[in-house]
Amino acid sequence: MSKKVNVGLIGYGTVGKGTAEILVHNKQDIFEKTGIDITLKTVADLKIDKTRLDETLSLCETVTNNADDIINDPEIDIVLELVGGYGFAKEIILKALKAKKNVVTANKALLALHGAEIFKAAQDNGVTIGFEGAVGGGIPLIGVLKEDLVGNNIKEIFGIINGTANYILSSMEAEGKEFSEALKAAQEKGYAEADPTFDIEGIDAAHKIAILASIGFKTLIPFDKVYIEGISNIKKVDIEFAKRLNCKIKLLAIAKKLDDCIEVRVHPTMLPNAEMMAQVSGVFNAVEFVGDNVDKTMYYGRGAGGKPTGSAVTADVVSIARDIVGGCTERVPVLGFAKEYDYYCPIRNIKDVKSKFYLRFSVLDEPGTLAKIAGILGKYNISISQAIQPDNRAPGEVVTMVFMTHKTIANNIMNAIEEIDASDCVSDKTVAIRVKELV
Amino acid sequence: MSKKVNVGLIGYGTVGKGTAEILVHNKQDIFEKTGIDITLKTVADLKIDKTRLDETLSLCETVTNNADDIINDPEIDIVLELVGGYGFAKEIILKALKAKKNVVTANKALLALHGAEIFKAAQDNGVTIGFEGAVGGGIPLIGVLKEDLVGNNIKEIFGIINGTANYILSSMEAEGKEFSEALKAAQEKGYAEADPTFDIEGIDAAHKIAILASIGFKTLIPFDKVYIEGISNIKKVDIEFAKRLNCKIKLLAIAKKLDDCIEVRVHPTMLPNAEMMAQVSGVFNAVEFVGDNVDKTMYYGRGAGGKPTGSAVTADVVSIARDIVGGCTERVPVLGFAKEYDYYCPIRNIKDVKSKFYLRFSVLDEPGTLAKIAGILGKYNISISQAIQPDNRAPGEVVTMVFMTHKTIANNIMNAIEEIDASDCVSDKTVAIRVKELV
Repeated sequence: MSKKVNVGLIGYGTVGKGTAEILVHNKQDIFEKTGIDITLKTVADLKIDKTRLDETLSLCETVTNNADDIINDPEIDIVLELVGGYGFAKEIILKALKAKKNVVTANKALLALHGAEIFKAAQDNGVTIGFEGAVGGGIPLIGVLKEDLVGNNIKEIFGIINGTANYILSSMEAEGKEFSEALKAAQEKGYAEADPTFDIEGIDAAHKIAILASIGFKTLIPFDKVYIEGISNIKKVDIEFAKRLNCKIKLLAIAKKLDDCIEVRVHPTMLPNAEMMAQVSGVFNAVEFVGDNVDKTMYYGRGAGGKPTGSAVTADVVSIARDIVGGCTERVPVLGFAKEYDYYCPIRNIKDVKSKFYLRFSVLDEPGTLAKIAGILGKYNISISQAIQPDNRAPGEVVTMVFMTHKTIANNIMNAIEEIDASDCVSDKTVAIRVKELV
Repeated sequence: MSKKVNVGLIGYGTVGKGTAEILVHNKQDIFEKTGIDITLKTVADLKIDKTRLDETLSLCETVTNNADDIINDPEIDIVLELVGGYGFAKEIILKALKAKKNVVTANKALLALHGAEIFKAAQDNGVTIGFEGAVGGGIPLIGVLKEDLVGNNIKEIFGIINGTANYILSSMEAEGKEFSEALKAAQEKGYAEADPTFDIEGIDAAHKIAILASIGFKTLIPFDKVYIEGISNIKKVDIEFAKRLNCKIKLLAIAKKLDDCIEVRVHPTMLPNAEMMAQVSGVFNAVEFVGDNVDKTMYYGRGAGGKPTGSAVTADVVSIARDIVGGCTERVPVLGFAKEYDYYCPIRNIKDVKSKFYLRFSVLDEPGTLAKIAGILGKYNISISQAIQPDNRAPGEVVTMVFMTHKTIANNIMNAIEEIDASDCVSDKTVAIRVKELV
C-alpha cells in the first residue's frame, strides 16, 4: 500500500487558507507522526489570481479556478470542501462522493440541513466524510464523541458554540455596554459579520448542536425541530441582575437525552458562576459532554478562525489518510453509529421543557401591580423563588422588577407573559431567561 | 472478517470493576455505535471467589484466578492489564504482547518507568498497546494528542493531573485547613490512600506528564529527568497570600517545548484566577494543550475512579476492536509518532528553568533584616516586583514576609534561599513557589 495521500482543497477563504498553511508547513511534522506523505496537491478557488500566488499556494503542485480539476483528478484521495453555503458546496460534495473520494468539510449549515442526503451519499459510495471543523473550531468534539466517549450513553451536551455571541455578551458584561453597542464594536473588530443574524439569533449554534446531538444520541436531528432564541433582546440591565445573582448570561446550546425523547435548544441562559462554563469568555467556545460512565467532561478552545478550524480539518484529513494507507474502510461510521441503527427519536416541544426562569417586568409602580402580576403567575402555576426590586423609585415611575421562578414548563411562562404583557401592569415587553441548574 | 472481538480483563479492582461494568452493561450501545460484538469473555483476579460472583462477573463466560487463562486463550484478542504496580503487571503485559495480543492498560507508573521496553515489545510483535486510562482518568487526552491535534506542533502541556493533591489544596483553600488536617480528611473520604506519597509528593503527576510529553513532543522522556516537587510544604498562610494575590495554588504538571530542549516538571504553582485552570477544584483534573495552530485548548473531567477510567479503557478497547475488524494494523503509532523518528530530546535542568517566584520568609522583625535579605536576593540578581508584609506586628516577633520576584532562573533562587536560610535573618525554612504567567 502506497504511503502517499493526495489532498485537493476547494475554497481558499479564511478556513481554506488556514488549512492549506497547516498541510504545507506542518507536512514534515505530520509525516513524523504518521509515516504518511500527505500532500496538498491542488487548491481551487474562483478568486485565485494564478499570476500572484502567496507562499503557501506557490508550494502546491496545482492552483486552479475550477473545482472540477480536483474532483476529476484520479490522483486525489481526499477533497476538502471549504467553500461554505448550501449551493455550490453541496454540489461539489455530492460530486466528490460520487467520484469515490473521501470528503472533509467544516460546513455546519449544510450538514445540519442536508446531512441525511450527504451522509447517505458517502455510505452509498463506500467513502467517508469528516466534519470535525464544523463544530467548535479547533476543539476536538466530533472525534471525542464518536471515539473517546464511545463507552458512554451520552446524557447531556451543552455549551457555548458561537464565539460572536459570546464575545458580545462578554463585552456587555465587562464594559457595561448595551447589546447594539457591543455588536457594533464586535463588527469593527471583525468578530461579527456585517449581517450577524446567524450568530446573534442562535441559528449557527443551532446548526452545531443539531450535529452534536445527532452523534451523541444516535439519531438524526431534523433541524426545524431545534428551538432557537437569540441574544438580541438581552439588555444591560439583565446582565446587571445576573451579576447580583452570581450568574453570567451565556448563549447556550443544550441537548438532553431523556427516557422517551430528546431536548435540543439554543437560548440565552443564566449560568451560575460556579459552573466552569460560566468562565468561558470572549470568542472562546466550550462544550460539556455528560456520559453515564465518565460523568461530566468539558472541552475548551478557539471556536473559529483559520488555523484553529484548519487544525480540526487536518485531523480529519490525517484520520482518513490513515484509513486509506491501512486499507480500512468505514472504520468509524460517519455519525458515530452503525447505519442500521439510525432512527428518529422524538424531540420534545419547547413548550413542554421545564426550566427555572428569570423574569424581568417593566412595571408601573402603582398600588396593586405586584398583586396583579403575582396573580397571573399563580394562575399558571408558576411559583416564585426570589423577587428582586431596585430600592430607589418614586411612585408612578416605571420600575424594573425581577422574579426568579421554580422549575416550570415553558408553556406556563409563555401564557403568563402573554397575559401580563396584554394587561395594563407593564410598560414594556417582559423578558424571560432560562436559568441553568448545576449539573 | 468476523465482527466479534473477545476481551480478557486481568485485575478486578476499582478500575477493573468499572471497566467490566461498562463492557457488560453498555455492550448493546457499543454495538449500535460500532457494529462490533465486543464481549468481555474472561475476568481474572486472584481474589475472586468463584462461588460468589457479583452481577457483572456472573454475565462473563469465564471467571478465573489465573491470568494465564486469558493470555493463553486463542479466542481472546485484547488483554486488559488493570492490576497496577511494576512487577506482575509488567510480566503479564509482556507475555500478552508476545502472544500477539493487543493490550490496554491504565498503569501510568509502569509506562513512565518501563515504557520503552513495553512499546518496543508491542512493535516487535505487531500489536498495539492502549493507555488512555493512564492519564486524566476519563478525560480524553492521549487520543486527543495522538489524533485530534495531529496538525499541531505542541508547544506546551500543563495541567492538574492528580485529583488527591487538588482535593487537598482545594479543601485547604475552602476550609482554611493546614495541610496535615486536609490530608487526614481526604484519607477519611477515600480521596487519599493510607500511604499518600505518590500523590502528595508529585510522583503520580510526574508519571503522567512524562507520558503526555513523550507523545506531545515526539520523544521518550526518561522519568528520572522529570523535576518533582510535592505539596506537603504548602501552608495555610501560603494559601492566604495566594488569595490576596488573586491566585490559587495548584500542583501543576508542566511540559514545554523550547527551541533546543524540553522542560518537564511537577511543582506547586501560583495560578492567576483569570486562568480557566485555576477554577478546577476538588478531585477534578484538567489539562491544557497549546498547539502552534489550534492555540490553547483545555480538557476537564474526572481524573480517577472506576467508571471514568473505565470509560477511557473502553475507548482503547473499541479503537483496537475497530482496527481488528477493519484489518488495519498499527493505524496510529503507540506514542503517536512513527517509530523511525523517536529520539531523545535534551531536557533542561530545573536549575536553568526561568519562572517568577513567590518567596515566603519567616523573619525576625529586627532592624536590618529586610536589608540583609534584599541584599542576598540582589547578589543573585533576583529582582522583586512586589513585597507584602502583614500589618500588625510587635518588634522582635517572628513575622511572615512575602516577596514576588521577576522572572529568574531557579538556580539563583535556590542559591539565595540557601544563603538566607543559613543566616540569622530567618527563624524557619524559606518557601518558594513558582508563579504561572498567563498563557
